[in-house]
Amino acid sequence: MSDSSKHNSPSRRQFLTGAAAAGAGAVAAGAAKAAGPDPLITEVQDWASSFGDGVDVTPYGLPIQFEQDVVRRNVEWLTADTISSINFTPIHALDGTITPQGCAFERHHSGAIEMRKEDYRLMINGLVDQELVFTYEDLERFPRENHVYFCECAANTGMEWAGAQLNGAQFTHGMIHNMEYTGVSLRTLLEEVGVKPEGKWIYVEGADASSNGRSIPMEKALDDVLVAFKANGEALRKEHGYPVRLVVPGWEGNMWIKWLRRIEVKDAPVESREETSKYTDNLANGIARKWTWVMDAKSIITSPSPQAPIKHGTGPLVITGLAWSGNGAITGVDVSVDGGKNWIEARLAAPGQDKAMTRFYLDHNWDGTEMFLQARAKDATGYVQPTKTQLRDVRGLNSIYHNNCIQTWWVKESGEAENVEVS
Amino acid sequence: MSDSSKHNSPSRRQFLTGAAAAGAGAVAAGAAKAAGPDPLITEVQDWASSFGDGVDVTPYGLPIQFEQDVVRRNVEWLTADTISSINFTPIHALDGTITPQGCAFERHHSGAIEMRKEDYRLMINGLVDQELVFTYEDLERFPRENHVYFCECAANTGMEWAGAQLNGAQFTHGMIHNMEYTGVSLRTLLEEVGVKPEGKWIYVEGADASSNGRSIPMEKALDDVLVAFKANGEALRKEHGYPVRLVVPGWEGNMWIKWLRRIEVKDAPVESREETSKYTDNLANGIARKWTWVMDAKSIITSPSPQAPIKHGTGPLVITGLAWSGNGAITGVDVSVDGGKNWIEARLAAPGQDKAMTRFYLDHNWDGTEMFLQARAKDATGYVQPTKTQLRDVRGLNSIYHNNCIQTWWVKESGEAENVEVS
Repeated sequence: MSDSSKHNSPSRRQFLTGAAAAGAGAVAAGAAKAAGPDPLITEVQDWASSFGDGVDVTPYGLPIQFEQDVVRRNVEWLTADTISSINFTPIHALDGTITPQGCAFERHHSGAIEMRKEDYRLMINGLVDQELVFTYEDLERFPRENHVYFCECAANTGMEWAGAQLNGAQFTHGMIHNMEYTGVSLRTLLEEVGVKPEGKWIYVEGADASSNGRSIPMEKALDDVLVAFKANGEALRKEHGYPVRLVVPGWEGNMWIKWLRRIEVKDAPVESREETSKYTDNLANGIARKWTWVMDAKSIITSPSPQAPIKHGTGPLVITGLAWSGNGAITGVDVSVDGGKNWIEARLAAPGQDKAMTRFYLDHNWDGTEMFLQARAKDATGYVQPTKTQLRDVRGLNSIYHNNCIQTWWVKESGEAENVEVS
Repeated sequence: MSDSSKHNSPSRRQFLTGAAAAGAGAVAAGAAKAAGPDPLITEVQDWASSFGDGVDVTPYGLPIQFEQDVVRRNVEWLTADTISSINFTPIHALDGTITPQGCAFERHHSGAIEMRKEDYRLMINGLVDQELVFTYEDLERFPRENHVYFCECAANTGMEWAGAQLNGAQFTHGMIHNMEYTGVSLRTLLEEVGVKPEGKWIYVEGADASSNGRSIPMEKALDDVLVAFKANGEALRKEHGYPVRLVVPGWEGNMWIKWLRRIEVKDAPVESREETSKYTDNLANGIARKWTWVMDAKSIITSPSPQAPIKHGTGPLVITGLAWSGNGAITGVDVSVDGGKNWIEARLAAPGQDKAMTRFYLDHNWDGTEMFLQARAKDATGYVQPTKTQLRDVRGLNSIYHNNCIQTWWVKESGEAENVEVS
């Protein structure tokens, strides 16, 4: 508040209108203009001369009608029907870091079930001192934690292994959300039942018909896993596992079991369908990598992008996107406008947080020529997001999962953008 | 990850079931129980033997039907009709810190208007080098920022000046929300037009029929005010000012102009209705305090509370609530169970953030006797939230606004809670 430099009257900068001597070349026509005969300014509009709607008729507010395209979408050819489907976050139209629950990515394997809190039970059994069953109310009595974490499907960007497939950040990178989760540390519940010394794994499953069972090593179970019942402050949506889901920070979304019903402490992993025939990475030599749980550092430019073209012509352009890492905090993001030949350090909206999304911005002066836009994330371990070529050299082309390579948008002179590959 | 103490098998703690030697007295009947003949566990339920709903039919997900009571509510006698009304956040039912936009507090003075982005104009005029009009698209071209801030109505808790009035945290303290806002620094826009040296104030107004004009000193305008177009990542809801609102961090919500249409740079404040007959504090001596913009440090226990009684009997009880300060970060919250005689330091879920809400928890072992629950916030300036008596001694009883006193919930042996005053 007392920084005196802030209190001087700022002199005119002319960021958009362009007469500033320091301006780099021609600037936008149609940008901010002197106050003049704009009918929207000079004539009294309906909204200023009559009442708007009373709000009490919609106690839970929905997005305004003009934003009806900002919704989750699926990819029709990707799954056979809606019972086992994927709904992608409209990341191209969002900003900031929080994903609203209503449009947050979700994947379900046998539909979204409806369970009342009163009917909720969580059993912890197996290699424990005493097998216990917890009600929802029981869970509410244990010490609670809040953390913002990203949840990314292992298959996010998976269709891009074979080349540029899907035209839009929502579809190439939208199997992800970032929410503030509230719940009980799984460690606390495992302390409650008492884990026997030979308990080295847990097997977790959901109450839906798929059960979606997964094995998790005890080290992770005792580290930062949450048994969560709120996201962004409110109850989980049905499709996010109401009333209780597992949160496995930094690890692939398939392990974040929804409608969590049972945790069995075991001496070995189960080798379930979801961790053998699915969610493993088929290499070129026929060997499958398994136990590839951690989502490596990754980033995506959300705007401009195929669903968010440049419509305002040359001059000032905000290039923005998201970065995240399952190994820790994002420490930096570089942006390239020439397909990776040169890199510029982007501005992080806030310091990176552990296993959570980071928003980045590059304030660019677009000269109207085509761009090959890329972003490259770096995390606290020193890891740098690889190119598609680097990743293919190691993993081959047979994979479906764990594609964290650098993405390229070709922004044309028209401002339209397209998903392409650059060598 | 490498903390070896974390990797030992935890031994049984018996937090809820109560045989632990360290347990303080009797513990809950009906808490977590050994796995046994619970039909919800031993019989196959419908949700595990049939498909749930496909989700693609609801691309924007709403809360599940069982949570239909977790919505904004108004207080019928407080405002004459829904055109000028207040919708209170259901803080008693939320956790974490983020308020979902759909249930976030909002106040409107002539209804919520519907304006398309294409029709949006922001004029900056008055004592500037060049008066300019910005379109929505223009605003999107300036450097963007993201910040989580609370927005609290000056009248929040105002009905409590005269004594305990409203029975529920939603109604006593729900004129507040906490969201991640994305927008352009107002300083940037003022630099764009160039403020003349005699420009010491701005007057801001909205496009709705009320216009709700307010004066803001230039020092604040150049500090941290945002011209915002997103909240929690997505477009503002209609009732939150779509497409653009002002964000005035730490200052009373009435200044956070919705449907922002004009900013006039002036040499003196306007002394508008909203800053003279309203939003000033009538003292006992007949003098009105004005320019009382900053919302002082405050806290509220959200659970247990009148709308969130204890239903699980004695033993472990999570006492939780929210704290915030317009003067900076929350540094600590104390909780009392005996009406302020003794205080226990609560656990902050995360370090306090500047002008944002902080969640606190106290893990308590309830013996079943009545409690007089209070919370007391402290902020980075050293300020400590006052008692109602302390505040009345200074401000009298005529006020409507800026009541940040300590709140008391009387929790009875039944677990029901009631809004009361303690001397």
